[in-house]
Amino acid sequence: MALIVQKYGGTSVGTIERIRNVARRAIKTKEQGHSVIVVVSAMAGETDRLIGLAQQITDLPDEREYDVLVSTGEQVSVALLAITLHSMGNSAVSFLGHQIKIQTDSAFSKARILNIDSERIMNSLDHGTIVIVAGFQGVDEDNNITTLGRGGSDTTAVAVAAALNADVCEIYTDVDGVYTTDPNICSDARKLEKISYDEMLEMASLGAKVLQIRSVELAKKYNVSIHVRSSLSDNTGTIVTKEDEEMEKVMVSGVTYNQNEAKITILRVPDKPGVASKIFTPITEANINVDMIIQNTSTDGYADLTFTVPKADFKKALGIVQKTAKELNAVDVLSDPNIAKVSIVGAGMRSHAGVASKMFTVLANVGVNIMMISTSEIKISCVIDAKFTELAVRVLHETFELSKSDVSQE
Amino acid sequence: MALIVQKYGGTSVGTIERIRNVARRAIKTKEQGHSVIVVVSAMAGETDRLIGLAQQITDLPDEREYDVLVSTGEQVSVALLAITLHSMGNSAVSFLGHQIKIQTDSAFSKARILNIDSERIMNSLDHGTIVIVAGFQGVDEDNNITTLGRGGSDTTAVAVAAALNADVCEIYTDVDGVYTTDPNICSDARKLEKISYDEMLEMASLGAKVLQIRSVELAKKYNVSIHVRSSLSDNTGTIVTKEDEEMEKVMVSGVTYNQNEAKITILRVPDKPGVASKIFTPITEANINVDMIIQNTSTDGYADLTFTVPKADFKKALGIVQKTAKELNAVDVLSDPNIAKVSIVGAGMRSHAGVASKMFTVLANVGVNIMMISTSEIKISCVIDAKFTELAVRVLHETFELSKSDVSQE
Repeated sequence: MALIVQKYGGTSVGTIERIRNVARRAIKTKEQGHSVIVVVSAMAGETDRLIGLAQQITDLPDEREYDVLVSTGEQVSVALLAITLHSMGNSAVSFLGHQIKIQTDSAFSKARILNIDSERIMNSLDHGTIVIVAGFQGVDEDNNITTLGRGGSDTTAVAVAAALNADVCEIYTDVDGVYTTDPNICSDARKLEKISYDEMLEMASLGAKVLQIRSVELAKKYNVSIHVRSSLSDNTGTIVTKEDEEMEKVMVSGVTYNQNEAKITILRVPDKPGVASKIFTPITEANINVDMIIQNTSTDGYADLTFTVPKADFKKALGIVQKTAKELNAVDVLSDPNIAKVSIVGAGMRSHAGVASKMFTVLANVGVNIMMISTSEIKISCVIDAKFTELAVRVLHETFELSKSDVSQE
Repeated sequence: MALIVQKYGGTSVGTIERIRNVARRAIKTKEQGHSVIVVVSAMAGETDRLIGLAQQITDLPDEREYDVLVSTGEQVSVALLAITLHSMGNSAVSFLGHQIKIQTDSAFSKARILNIDSERIMNSLDHGTIVIVAGFQGVDEDNNITTLGRGGSDTTAVAVAAALNADVCEIYTDVDGVYTTDPNICSDARKLEKISYDEMLEMASLGAKVLQIRSVELAKKYNVSIHVRSSLSDNTGTIVTKEDEEMEKVMVSGVTYNQNEAKITILRVPDKPGVASKIFTPITEANINVDMIIQNTSTDGYADLTFTVPKADFKKALGIVQKTAKELNAVDVLSDPNIAKVSIVGAGMRSHAGVASKMFTVLANVGVNIMMISTSEIKISCVIDAKFTELAVRVLHETFELSKSDVSQE
């Protein structure tokens, strides 16, 4: 008998009929002899409806009260699921953030979970009751309601799994696992059986939208196995877990891409201390996240500096940089919103040499120019012209033989 | 400087624009130098929407989870009002049942308030903050969410006023006070300046729909002055307060009517112990509330027994009674759904003789036959043919000079 946490997103509880499906799956898991905790999000569209009400009042709603408002979405979901389970003859109980003391800091709308009181949950499980936990919400030390940010229900699920030492945290989505790359681009993209936390973190932050990054960080910290799987089938999905020997044998686990960034270059700024700070401080103060930054080597006391920002902030960032460029007497500011970041991710890169050069060579062979490069221990990212995205993804997927099963790569 | 509790119903917070009006009124009260606590209901239609979701699942939703569901309505309202007050530059904070420990028993859907922790409210008021409290909801001793039943926000407001020893509890509605009778029937119906708790209780239970009965009982118990007034104007409404000398001088304060009952008569049942019990036990077991019961004097060992039930339960009750009548060998069962109960209410009846006979006489004079009579210390009710309702109300209103101001009746 295992303790299983199941998390269902807004689409999975979007209608009463879908809530019935969630109930049936929870009952089936219970009938297999397991203890079941279900974490649910708000019904699809509900959070947006609530945000819409607040926006009718003001563009900048008070943060504490905003969380009081949006947390009702999950409260409705847990109640409806509990009512459904009861109507099917099962014992079930819903818990809100304050009832099981999902304690967070006071950063409204983006709070972090500090602690969960497992006693009341354990007690219900011991009585054979299916426990339903509202995702996305918690309370701070003054019992004010807080929320964890978009996708926060994933984090709730992992935190509950960690607090109760669950055997697995199943995250149900509309895809049946984590793929080697986007199946819409590569028809031979393959579902991964396993992926390490670090690889998943790189995949998530690089553009795969399966799991919220913070939930993976938390899972890594507390060693919670995540099973990403489809709510529409019984197929096994992808297990996100700690790195093992088998994974290390695999050079590259996946190819990801991100077309949501834009590139800005400042030509010929003086190459001396404090210049980068002068350029990036006003951008940071405008709450714009800079992703990659590249500065070429200075030859004559001047350097070119290139960086990427989210496309949504592109115009704002450009305006700020043009002002700074003038102050620094830079020669010109170039910009390009039509870029893509293509990345390869793999825990095996730590022990395999030559992965990067192989990536650069294969892109060159098909005529794709690399504008920027950024690397970490387990990933290599290249910024290229957006129009080459699909080509680059396909050729990298083929080169690293990702359509073949994990072991065959040894 | 006074401490004022203001309660706004679902219609008053039914749209964002109306919520703005509530905010303006709260601010105005505060700017007059008062401390302000606002209690709000769910937006009009929201509770029905939530109930509709539950009913899509089952006719008999689990009671605990039903309260988790419907309590979200008030949570949305308090958040939106707080966001509105902040957007207008005011300090405001919302509190849910669990945050100020509105402790109730565990009777889900019809819980009774046992205690309120005033400390957090007082602390906010001391900082000049407008406090917003979610109506209708509380928590039991295990921190399960409970609700107080339809109209429960009135009760929350009075309970908060009692706990904080407020100077007045203002209940805002779409009428501007309590009237001597229904203005739709009597064009010269007059708004009462004052009414006693007991009179208000009789008025409320007899058909005037201004205040939830339990809130008046609570106000009487803790001596909370209620000011029933309109959210659409600044006019003074009606003060519901403890009986004073002036009130006792007034014989009759109001005329009410109720057309939602039906009458059932059993002819010639044996007049011996246990018969009434045999008739009413199965009705009670079917959860039907019997209102008036009349049994005539027995002359030959047999009696006729007449009683009224809610019209909604009429057919069900009739079926039960016909079965019982057969068992008791009663001669026949008569029934009449076209009846009305017309009542006069007044604290002064305690000290004035002849009020009842005056009522009977005036009804007889206009040809209205009285079918049943029921009296209490401060009210007299007559059941009559429904078609005479308006006539009876008008003639009683005129006879007891209710269109004239209170003092002129001395």
